[in-house]
Amino acid sequence: MTNIGIVGAGVAGLHLGLYLRQQGIETTIYAEKTPGQEFSSRIPALVARVGHTRERERKLGINHWDGGNSEFSHLHVYVGGEQPMGFSGTVEQPFIAVDMRIYLGRLLEDFAARGGHVVAGAVQASDLEQLSANHDLLVVASGRAGLTDVFPRLAEYSPFDRPQRWICMGLFRGIADAPSVCSVTFVPGEGEIFEFPIYSFEPNLRGLGFEAVPGSNFEAVGQLRYEDDPAAFNAGLLGLLREHAPQIYERVDPATFGLARPLDLLQGGVTPTVRHGYVRLNSGKYALALGDVQATNDPITGQGANKASYTAWMLGEAISGSDTFDEAFCEQIEQRIWAYTAPIVNWSNAMLQPPQPHMIELLVAAAQNQDVANAFVNFFERPQQAWDVMKSQEQTTKFLAQYNWQGMPQMQVAA
Amino acid sequence: MTNIGIVGAGVAGLHLGLYLRQQGIETTIYAEKTPGQEFSSRIPALVARVGHTRERERKLGINHWDGGNSEFSHLHVYVGGEQPMGFSGTVEQPFIAVDMRIYLGRLLEDFAARGGHVVAGAVQASDLEQLSANHDLLVVASGRAGLTDVFPRLAEYSPFDRPQRWICMGLFRGIADAPSVCSVTFVPGEGEIFEFPIYSFEPNLRGLGFEAVPGSNFEAVGQLRYEDDPAAFNAGLLGLLREHAPQIYERVDPATFGLARPLDLLQGGVTPTVRHGYVRLNSGKYALALGDVQATNDPITGQGANKASYTAWMLGEAISGSDTFDEAFCEQIEQRIWAYTAPIVNWSNAMLQPPQPHMIELLVAAAQNQDVANAFVNFFERPQQAWDVMKSQEQTTKFLAQYNWQGMPQMQVAA
Repeated sequence: MTNIGIVGAGVAGLHLGLYLRQQGIETTIYAEKTPGQEFSSRIPALVARVGHTRERERKLGINHWDGGNSEFSHLHVYVGGEQPMGFSGTVEQPFIAVDMRIYLGRLLEDFAARGGHVVAGAVQASDLEQLSANHDLLVVASGRAGLTDVFPRLAEYSPFDRPQRWICMGLFRGIADAPSVCSVTFVPGEGEIFEFPIYSFEPNLRGLGFEAVPGSNFEAVGQLRYEDDPAAFNAGLLGLLREHAPQIYERVDPATFGLARPLDLLQGGVTPTVRHGYVRLNSGKYALALGDVQATNDPITGQGANKASYTAWMLGEAISGSDTFDEAFCEQIEQRIWAYTAPIVNWSNAMLQPPQPHMIELLVAAAQNQDVANAFVNFFERPQQAWDVMKSQEQTTKFLAQYNWQGMPQMQVAA
Repeated sequence: MTNIGIVGAGVAGLHLGLYLRQQGIETTIYAEKTPGQEFSSRIPALVARVGHTRERERKLGINHWDGGNSEFSHLHVYVGGEQPMGFSGTVEQPFIAVDMRIYLGRLLEDFAARGGHVVAGAVQASDLEQLSANHDLLVVASGRAGLTDVFPRLAEYSPFDRPQRWICMGLFRGIADAPSVCSVTFVPGEGEIFEFPIYSFEPNLRGLGFEAVPGSNFEAVGQLRYEDDPAAFNAGLLGLLREHAPQIYERVDPATFGLARPLDLLQGGVTPTVRHGYVRLNSGKYALALGDVQATNDPITGQGANKASYTAWMLGEAISGSDTFDEAFCEQIEQRIWAYTAPIVNWSNAMLQPPQPHMIELLVAAAQNQDVANAFVNFFERPQQAWDVMKSQEQTTKFLAQYNWQGMPQMQVAA
């Protein structure tokens, strides 16, 4: 009888745990927090789940938030700069956003209700040897610093030694609902702004996230400490929206705009890092890296939770189809997970750089052709296609040729 | 400087604490649960907050759930039996329902963020003496058994020695939304059914509560243990809806109907009890009873949380207008609280009895006259008027005369 231990109760750990329970496999999740601690913690991320993730959720019976007001199909893209432009595309399957505290706490309850074992409390790297004695395989899916360090960093896929964006994201009041709309704003030299509806502990909030280029004004504002001066923090963000995000600002009520609760804010930065997918423990058992432990990406492409879910399912299928969890097993699943992950890593890292001409051409084409616009917004659902199209001028040209795109207008090439 | 201690973090304790903090008064709440423990606990009640409660919430800045999908203005009343009848009335100010775990946990966070002191953990009756040393006045607003017993039961206002209804209430899936609608169903000999939208940890749930007359079929079904057999529990309630609540059943999808989560269910009964409003402690300080400690009512009239809020505000005003908290203070506020509470107690207790002819006449009149129907549903907002109208045939006759009511149709009098 296979027995799996999972360290970490984020999207990766929970989707894997729920998959394994659905297959009747004995599974333990070592969760840092109880559901109650999760519900009352700082918001850990701002996540939009795309269609393929939602399909797996339906198969697992954890689609508790379907049909609410936090689904969205229309992505409004706005590109600032000297020649602002914008377009709106529709995704084929609606995305959904739920406060991750509610989502993760609830899925941990579901896992326990379905016969999963839950051990609450922090796990240290030094605990892994002992834990491995109880399981055929340990899956490490917790982003805690000491735990990720167990898996060696792969320098060739980890081009950065520091965060490429300062992230400031949270739940905000005073932004009127645009039903079923998510907005994405690119501000050259400053960064990106994401905004969408979200299901949380109260209605009528919008998730709002700034990705700030180091040294930019976005960064200066995004690093303000809310606790020091809530009014100054809110006013700072409001100023950024007024100046750079007209499609959000037109829905803002300046009198009520502001962070909903102090714990509804997340500030920080991540260094994109790819790690070796498994390690052999002294016990002879193996520990596999999953989710952010395997590859941490900047949230700029919104792939973190969706990749975690996708690869958890891959691993779940591999586990339920195997009865030995030796190095060959680990090597094979590592390769499969990497094959899926590599384009996401490449795409996410490319989006952190100043846009190359073919990226600008793609945006211009989307602004002028609705079919291109729809294809563009569906890239968030199909990150492999996204990277395939964006990885070079040649690929973008080939992609746009399908839409009878005649190349960049002369005026803009001259600009 | 006045310093108040409040034992209990329900609606009474929190509204009082938030009121006192708004006045700048030093206040400590002894809360059995942290917000996280509250968020992850069993649902403690199914509460609809009426207009006057919502006005106070706006004044306190705790109206976090306004403008969502859990407000309702239209009360659909259905009376079963041999001659079924029904009517729909509109309340002047919309009611709202929020999962009390989310509501109470959040208000405790608000209290702490506004400089209130929170001490988490259970308080026993034997702790009151020691706690009183730190405060000018102790307010006891926790329904824990030992604590209520500190305040002597007033037999003359407490006619029952056991619960008059078995209560089975919870959050359910598979009941289609009827926007802005609450339904109330009276089933002669069986009990009552309440159903309304509610804001909880997931969208599209309905609050559904059965008040079961002892010995009835409602009671037999309402006492089924969910954990023993979830499918049988759900099927039992579905059967009651099919047979007795057509206005709910027509919105039910039998394939998906059921309790949302095991912790979303509350079963039990309360013995309506009025208690002496204060006691002198050995320390020489006084302890005041508030909320359910002062008067526990059956939830049949939906007044518990609303009365708790109203009387908390009364007490808050009295405290901020006084600097001595001696027996005279306690006696005066007890009398004022009782003057407000007595009609609610009388009305709630009367509704637990088989309906008298004038009550039936009132329902018949409401079914035939829209103005009476509107007045009837507004009784939940105005419990004093409710009791004034319902306390006798004379009063009902006088009330209905305003609407040119000609008395009961002969046919029904003969029936």
